[in-house]
Amino acid sequence: MSSSQFDHKLGGPSLAFQPLYQQVGEYIKQLIVERRWQPGEMLPSEFKLADEFNVSQGTVRKALTLLTDTKIVTRRQGVGTFVSEHTAQDALFRFFPLQADGKGADLPKAELLSKERISPTNAVQQALSITAKDKVIKLKRRRILDNEFCMLETIFLPAKMFTGINNREDIPHTLYHFYQTDYNLTVFKTRDSIKAILASKEDAESLHVEEGTPLLLVTRITESIEGKLIEYRESKCRTDHYHYQVELD
Amino acid sequence: MSSSQFDHKLGGPSLAFQPLYQQVGEYIKQLIVERRWQPGEMLPSEFKLADEFNVSQGTVRKALTLLTDTKIVTRRQGVGTFVSEHTAQDALFRFFPLQADGKGADLPKAELLSKERISPTNAVQQALSITAKDKVIKLKRRRILDNEFCMLETIFLPAKMFTGINNREDIPHTLYHFYQTDYNLTVFKTRDSIKAILASKEDAESLHVEEGTPLLLVTRITESIEGKLIEYRESKCRTDHYHYQVELD
Repeated sequence: MSSSQFDHKLGGPSLAFQPLYQQVGEYIKQLIVERRWQPGEMLPSEFKLADEFNVSQGTVRKALTLLTDTKIVTRRQGVGTFVSEHTAQDALFRFFPLQADGKGADLPKAELLSKERISPTNAVQQALSITAKDKVIKLKRRRILDNEFCMLETIFLPAKMFTGINNREDIPHTLYHFYQTDYNLTVFKTRDSIKAILASKEDAESLHVEEGTPLLLVTRITESIEGKLIEYRESKCRTDHYHYQVELD
Repeated sequence: MSSSQFDHKLGGPSLAFQPLYQQVGEYIKQLIVERRWQPGEMLPSEFKLADEFNVSQGTVRKALTLLTDTKIVTRRQGVGTFVSEHTAQDALFRFFPLQADGKGADLPKAELLSKERISPTNAVQQALSITAKDKVIKLKRRRILDNEFCMLETIFLPAKMFTGINNREDIPHTLYHFYQTDYNLTVFKTRDSIKAILASKEDAESLHVEEGTPLLLVTRITESIEGKLIEYRESKCRTDHYHYQVELD
């Protein structure tokens, strides 16, 4: 890789212990993080990448397979390999696990209830690895499936990663797609912790259920492709007509 | 693959549209399903498999990568490729998503409360794709983490797949491992639907909580490596000290 024509800053002591294709995979990922190629853009051919990195084409292929498995790139048969893009719809289906009972995945609508710039609570500081001095943007939203309120969301974003977001009037419903297009932050991984709670008076009013109705409380920490913690979210979900769906294999 | 020395029954109209390595992968999977090799056993070398299937070694390697991704086989660096085995511990960590708050994954204990052979309800018939005439074995268990009752499980097994299980006094805590070792049924995939409910009087007594405490109700359908529906399970989980953990990427 010393003969590469790219100006890069990979490396470090652990590299020597990785198989070559993993190193090449990490390297291509780093170039994607650094926006050498945009989301949706096609990568150079395996042949060209192999030539640039001075490795075999088989090594490049294995590296791209790694990146395909982790959904960083997408292969289109007979066309080439593309930097994955969160289309609004993709991100919704991939990261929205609440489904109406007896139906397949459906696209929920969102209604923004409030937006403010505040100091983070201890829980938010811990979730986002930030300090009390950092500011966060707090969004409250209500999600709608089948013309019914199904979910209340409270979303916390580190203000320093989302410059100017508090003054924007045009925040779209499809947040993950918006993070990618407007802030160069690509959602890579979410970690949900699920508990059962009782609806408070306020929850009950927002969701049009009785106070004391059992709800799911889903707390989510979201990581970008670079490993940054970009969002903390608390969602309260009705389950009288909905369920949270998980497949493990 | 026509020169293969194996007596197999793969094939069918869709094969012609799959890349060769996928066909080889399906074929090896089928041989594993048919117990040509036991769980934990090492497969022949890539070279030997390539020779037997009359394909290139690269094709075999890609096929084995497919099977590694779906955890059907496991590679050990410098040793070989092995048929995956549910060790008791593996299966627990892979398919037991309830964790104590503020702690990592831990091994839950299980206490068998009852075992009976019954006719399935409509819900169980539907979940397991069986008829009212089929019998099911119903197990009730209580799970224990940190010396506290955390979960009540009601488990339904199709009696015809689990011959003699109702007379066994020695059912171990690690059921998925037991299904594999004693009934040749390997858990491959689980689908969980999660709702929030209120503890009934009976739930409350079993779990040592107040009646009306919010609980998670996790209904799970479990599929074997051959695609058989082998278990339906309803778990009621406390979340005062526990949460159900999910990572999406």
